[in-house]
Amino acid sequence: MTTHAPIARRPLTRLLDPRSVAVIGASDNPARIGGRPLHYLLNGRFEGEVHAVNANRSTVQGVTAYPSILEVPGEVDAVIVAVPAHSVVQTITECAEKGVGAAVIFSSGFAEQDEQGAAWQAELTAISARTGIRLLGPNCLGAFNARTDWLATFSTSVEQYPVQPGPIAIASQSGAFGSHLYTVAAKRGVRCTYWVTTGNESDIEISECIAWYADAPDVGVIAVYAEGVRNGPGLRDALERAYAANKPVIFQKVGRSGAGAEAAASHTASLAGADAVYDALFRQYGVCRVDSIEELLDIALACQSGAMPRGNKLGIMTISGGAGVQMADTAEACGLDVAPMPADQQAYLKELIPFAGVRNPVDITAQALNDMSLIGKFMRSMMDEGGYDAVVAFFTVVAGSRMISEKLIETLRDIREKYAHAPMVLSIVAPDDVVRAYEEAGYTILEDPARAVRAAAAMAHFGTSFERGAGAAPPSLPPAAMGVPDRTVDEDEARRILASAGVPMAASRLATTPGEAAEAWSAIGGPVAMKIVSPDILHKTEIGAVRLDVNSAAEAAQAHSEIMAAARHHYPDARITGVILSEMVTGGVETVLGVISDPVFGPAVMFGLGGVFVEVLGDVTFRIAPFGIDEAHRMIREIRGIRMLEGVRGQPACDIDALARALVNLSVFAAANAGRFSSIDINPCIVLPEGQGVAGVDALIVPS
Amino acid sequence: MTTHAPIARRPLTRLLDPRSVAVIGASDNPARIGGRPLHYLLNGRFEGEVHAVNANRSTVQGVTAYPSILEVPGEVDAVIVAVPAHSVVQTITECAEKGVGAAVIFSSGFAEQDEQGAAWQAELTAISARTGIRLLGPNCLGAFNARTDWLATFSTSVEQYPVQPGPIAIASQSGAFGSHLYTVAAKRGVRCTYWVTTGNESDIEISECIAWYADAPDVGVIAVYAEGVRNGPGLRDALERAYAANKPVIFQKVGRSGAGAEAAASHTASLAGADAVYDALFRQYGVCRVDSIEELLDIALACQSGAMPRGNKLGIMTISGGAGVQMADTAEACGLDVAPMPADQQAYLKELIPFAGVRNPVDITAQALNDMSLIGKFMRSMMDEGGYDAVVAFFTVVAGSRMISEKLIETLRDIREKYAHAPMVLSIVAPDDVVRAYEEAGYTILEDPARAVRAAAAMAHFGTSFERGAGAAPPSLPPAAMGVPDRTVDEDEARRILASAGVPMAASRLATTPGEAAEAWSAIGGPVAMKIVSPDILHKTEIGAVRLDVNSAAEAAQAHSEIMAAARHHYPDARITGVILSEMVTGGVETVLGVISDPVFGPAVMFGLGGVFVEVLGDVTFRIAPFGIDEAHRMIREIRGIRMLEGVRGQPACDIDALARALVNLSVFAAANAGRFSSIDINPCIVLPEGQGVAGVDALIVPS
Repeated sequence: MTTHAPIARRPLTRLLDPRSVAVIGASDNPARIGGRPLHYLLNGRFEGEVHAVNANRSTVQGVTAYPSILEVPGEVDAVIVAVPAHSVVQTITECAEKGVGAAVIFSSGFAEQDEQGAAWQAELTAISARTGIRLLGPNCLGAFNARTDWLATFSTSVEQYPVQPGPIAIASQSGAFGSHLYTVAAKRGVRCTYWVTTGNESDIEISECIAWYADAPDVGVIAVYAEGVRNGPGLRDALERAYAANKPVIFQKVGRSGAGAEAAASHTASLAGADAVYDALFRQYGVCRVDSIEELLDIALACQSGAMPRGNKLGIMTISGGAGVQMADTAEACGLDVAPMPADQQAYLKELIPFAGVRNPVDITAQALNDMSLIGKFMRSMMDEGGYDAVVAFFTVVAGSRMISEKLIETLRDIREKYAHAPMVLSIVAPDDVVRAYEEAGYTILEDPARAVRAAAAMAHFGTSFERGAGAAPPSLPPAAMGVPDRTVDEDEARRILASAGVPMAASRLATTPGEAAEAWSAIGGPVAMKIVSPDILHKTEIGAVRLDVNSAAEAAQAHSEIMAAARHHYPDARITGVILSEMVTGGVETVLGVISDPVFGPAVMFGLGGVFVEVLGDVTFRIAPFGIDEAHRMIREIRGIRMLEGVRGQPACDIDALARALVNLSVFAAANAGRFSSIDINPCIVLPEGQGVAGVDALIVPS
Repeated sequence: MTTHAPIARRPLTRLLDPRSVAVIGASDNPARIGGRPLHYLLNGRFEGEVHAVNANRSTVQGVTAYPSILEVPGEVDAVIVAVPAHSVVQTITECAEKGVGAAVIFSSGFAEQDEQGAAWQAELTAISARTGIRLLGPNCLGAFNARTDWLATFSTSVEQYPVQPGPIAIASQSGAFGSHLYTVAAKRGVRCTYWVTTGNESDIEISECIAWYADAPDVGVIAVYAEGVRNGPGLRDALERAYAANKPVIFQKVGRSGAGAEAAASHTASLAGADAVYDALFRQYGVCRVDSIEELLDIALACQSGAMPRGNKLGIMTISGGAGVQMADTAEACGLDVAPMPADQQAYLKELIPFAGVRNPVDITAQALNDMSLIGKFMRSMMDEGGYDAVVAFFTVVAGSRMISEKLIETLRDIREKYAHAPMVLSIVAPDDVVRAYEEAGYTILEDPARAVRAAAAMAHFGTSFERGAGAAPPSLPPAAMGVPDRTVDEDEARRILASAGVPMAASRLATTPGEAAEAWSAIGGPVAMKIVSPDILHKTEIGAVRLDVNSAAEAAQAHSEIMAAARHHYPDARITGVILSEMVTGGVETVLGVISDPVFGPAVMFGLGGVFVEVLGDVTFRIAPFGIDEAHRMIREIRGIRMLEGVRGQPACDIDALARALVNLSVFAAANAGRFSSIDINPCIVLPEGQGVAGVDALIVPS
């Protein structure tokens, strides 16, 4: 279940798999922007109808040129638009009239340039919304479908590296970057069926491409480059679909360093920064976030082999002890389990090669490559008896010759087939043709051993993430839950609202008179803290309007009088609701729960440890609301200071289950009240020892 | 000044630059281990004399074979030994007798194999020590000198990729790894004059190679692979020499994940782990530690251009906005300063290209590559007026053709020459010959933009590290400093010893009677803590042998009686020195100072923040003793929680100068007492507000 809005479902099929197309602004010169795609379409494998539109010529590149799209005979699924910016609105209006399914708009000079351009772009958006025509761009490098050779792009990369269908689909906001990404991918043998650049996103956004890829049967892996999205729920929906389809999403979201740069009003908000919310979303849907193109392509390459393990136990085979140690280092840093081989197998392998390392890394030494049957025996032992989920092997130049590669592939064929789910990544230095032979046999080849291990780790990330499933859905909002009102909320009310939604708060009472304070003390029944409640008094402690450890009813009545007097003295005009008495919570660990209202993604729940962890280390994590109990548990375990909650240096373990429930309930409350608040802080929220629950000690709700 | 022992200076010149050589165990078959180097030497450019030794033949590969090295005429600088393990001791004995300078021992079957091999290896070490003959290996892949074509290796990598002299020198303990490293380096155009694999290190250790490279005029950059060293002071000396010579050292030390695995007696030691000490050493001498071969070679390649900046201001030029953002992210993550262009230059550039990004990243857009003069103007503005220390430019395939590369190199020639210290790293996708052309013109080419930025960051690391210099030398030990005695040290004595060495401790007194306790209270003059002093009582608090906040002389006398009674009751046989009274220090921030005694590197000083920072986060840093005040300041600023000392949330800034002095004094004391203690803890050590110093509150010295 999700409560966020799905994106409109107007499939991109006519854009990405058209049967009849036209180039508007077609040029006779195949080097020009309006000539290049026509040249590709006329001279490639594209089997659909191809038309040209050019008001000034009767033929272009040997085909009839029509003066307008309206003159083109028959149905047109998709058009390429390469006309000056000022003509684009008219062109698209005519396309819509013609019933064209989708337009790829190369033209620049829109929102990226000036006010006039922004106005034109707004008109395009309106035409699309009104008529249903789908628009890619403007200011984009286009798209392609490698299966049909529909090359709707003026990028020359597809000339240098002809497109080849494969399981990967690429979506990039940036044209130049997308073109670079395709080039480097093609060079490395990463095969992409679909490639889309979205440019200014007047209509089609990156999220919709992801959603379409998630549904497309010929897409196995989704690679995305984005600088940011405008439609947060759309992206969430798209990633949820990809996750449900068990399709790995590799996402390069740039702009990390902008995070936290914006000043923010509330405490929680100042710790967020838009980038942290992307991280939250990616964690929720098992997305692999990468920081470089190279990492993106390493993982895409590994995905291409189709092997996705269900666990994170890594077997390391090496012909160099040193490389083995390095790979074990990298594996540990990536969170993989470099579990040792079973003792009996270690003894068996030691018999085969007396000076081998047999624990894991398994060091077969360079000599083993002289006797392939040994490698077979070692690999069989590692997979059949070691039970590894993935294997990385360092063979360097030694396995880089055609002769050795043929023997090795043959020797290991049965094991490779038997463990189809296990990624087998080989660190080998070899010429391209040998690399391709290994790849065709089901191996991933990455020259650098550290990158080989990291690719295996990414596959384990996807495999285990899909294996665990989405987990429990968020519960419904309790019927008795109060909502966020359309006005200032004082602390007493904030506590009552949150408690009503299932976020436990320490016992408290509001007292407007000394007598009520005494009664409240007795009702709570123990030491209390007392504090003025007023929207106009900010520095409560400094003026004596806060008391701790109030130990009797009489003391409470006395304190009430003094606090009210101090408040009236320092803030004669303040609106005062009364004095709140709250239970002094002892023991447990201080944490901070909060919610920010992200302009793109809506409410995002924050969790962190209190004190120095938040103040000095910024050790917090986020999730987009709402989420279920399993997600809350994963969230809690992401913080660096998790040992504080598990019980450190003789302290008891905390009630992490109750904390997870509180986070879930807070997320459900936040989602139900989306748009009505700008932030929520429960700081501190004490997590008591196991079985004793949590208690929010202070609460703040800032309405929108 | 350093107090550690330098390594013996028996230069490796005859090993690495011999004029006359012999192959012992020379084979007629150039594919065999004893035949391959002979083949290389006879058929390559090596101009020295080449002899063969083989008792069973009169000629080998067409040259005279002598029955023994003793029969070879004339002086022999270096020999290659390819005989079975059991003959090696005899062979080396004869070599020493002949006066051979150095032997490269390929043979395996020594300490890596069994007891017998270890015994043979010990004999080799003894022969070298006695006679002065230098030994490389056994169980190594040899060495080469690319300038003279002295190819003393049986690795086939030098056949596939002929050696080419250049500024890089490689030292690797592992043969297979070293061979892989050379292969990948050569493939990428990283030119190495020297390459040495040290194998079992019966004599020549990796440290000595580094030291020799540091002194060699034809070495500019030192690349090292090691699993660990036995001679810590030797490595320190070598790195110090390289640092003094301003030669970048790129070091891949594997085995990180083994860190902390060993159980350790003291608190400080349990936080160390040998790997942290390597990190400490590397930081002290500006070494760039890498975790992968690829990173090592990226940096070596960047070093090869010879440009080393003196600051860390990075200018980013791009033809894709998206790539610019990504590079800025990576730059910030690497600690580079992506400072904006001056406002007037931004205006000037905006005039040149209206839709350019002009702040930094400077986005010239893809069109700019059509007009080279524009790129020249932009680059001139960035260097002359922006004042960047380094530039990274993303040109992708667009600058990958020979035509564009020639124009671009020509256009930028004057700027490239004018700013010789500024690394200019280009992210370009191009064929090898175009890459070489850019490299010859002084650019570093790395296809991936993230790697391009990281390479620039490494250069800035080296440049700024050399620029700052070694900093203040450690001071002398104060004349009045006490030493660590050869017996158990109680807390009172530990405090006095450390205070005498210049590590400030809170005021304290030992009292053996209630009367002395009263006097001690008056002398300290304020609230004190009291604690039993006994080597036999471990759980002092639990038995009531600790009191806090003792507020008067009378209370102190009473507490003394009670503590002594409690101690005698629970530990009737304990040796009791008395009761220590110490000043209750209020305010300030808790830190932990400590020293471990590393078996390889000797005393290493630890610093961290107290409480959760150490307990939960392990936020500590190390330096090898002794060190000066600048190093202490750098050390303090490495911890994640540094803001605690700088004053957070309204707290005053702490006396970081006094803390740095305490660390320096502790390091000098530790170095002077090396070998006499196993660990020292000052936990907590309170750092008071600025100008008020530090005060150690508890002290523990564990003698060896």
